[in-house]
Amino acid sequence: MIVKKYHEVEKLAVNEEGAKNTSIRWLVGKDADAPNFFLRQLEVEPGGHTPFHNHPWEHEVYVLEGRGQINTRGESKPLEKGSFGLVMPGEEHQFENTGDTPFTFLCIIPDPDKAK
Amino acid sequence: MIVKKYHEVEKLAVNEEGAKNTSIRWLVGKDADAPNFFLRQLEVEPGGHTPFHNHPWEHEVYVLEGRGQINTRGESKPLEKGSFGLVMPGEEHQFENTGDTPFTFLCIIPDPDKAK
Repeated sequence: MIVKKYHEVEKLAVNEEGAKNTSIRWLVGKDADAPNFFLRQLEVEPGGHTPFHNHPWEHEVYVLEGRGQINTRGESKPLEKGSFGLVMPGEEHQFENTGDTPFTFLCIIPDPDKAK
Repeated sequence: MIVKKYHEVEKLAVNEEGAKNTSIRWLVGKDADAPNFFLRQLEVEPGGHTPFHNHPWEHEVYVLEGRGQINTRGESKPLEKGSFGLVMPGEEHQFENTGDTPFTFLCIIPDPDKAK
């Protein structure tokens, strides 16, 4: 069993092309021997966004604080504290901060080695 | 893609034996065609707790608000906003509200039909 606070986990800059002012904490990942899926905490600073991209695994997200939106091809949906979402495998998406405070959300992904 | 607010999802009483003053919202579950894992939001009222039990799948949890603790056999660890945890398959555990406001946390579990 693991119990920690999120700030005990190192915050890493997201340097992927198309990302801006975004960092990530891998709260529960491979290092924790997570059996099936990984829990990450993303922080997007004002003016920032994640890459507009797609990949063969899903996201389940839950917004902790701040204001933002999820951009897909041709559509945007607002996100705020208590919003959650499911991005299906292959769906293009981007998370963008639309406020003036950090936009923070949890993002859960399957372990690519185990997802069916 | 699904985007909603948590309060749009029905809050159901947890009637499992050993649960007290606890409710659950299945934010992303089988109905959403979640490919691999389910996102639930638990709310434990003051004086309440989940069952002390174990099962063959893991939990990944993240505390949203309130104060509580996770009880295992012979040990308790405090939980507050920003705490997260991994409960491994087979580990006995119970979540208990130790404060005087609702203790609310996310709890992610694998789809039992897909977990390895």
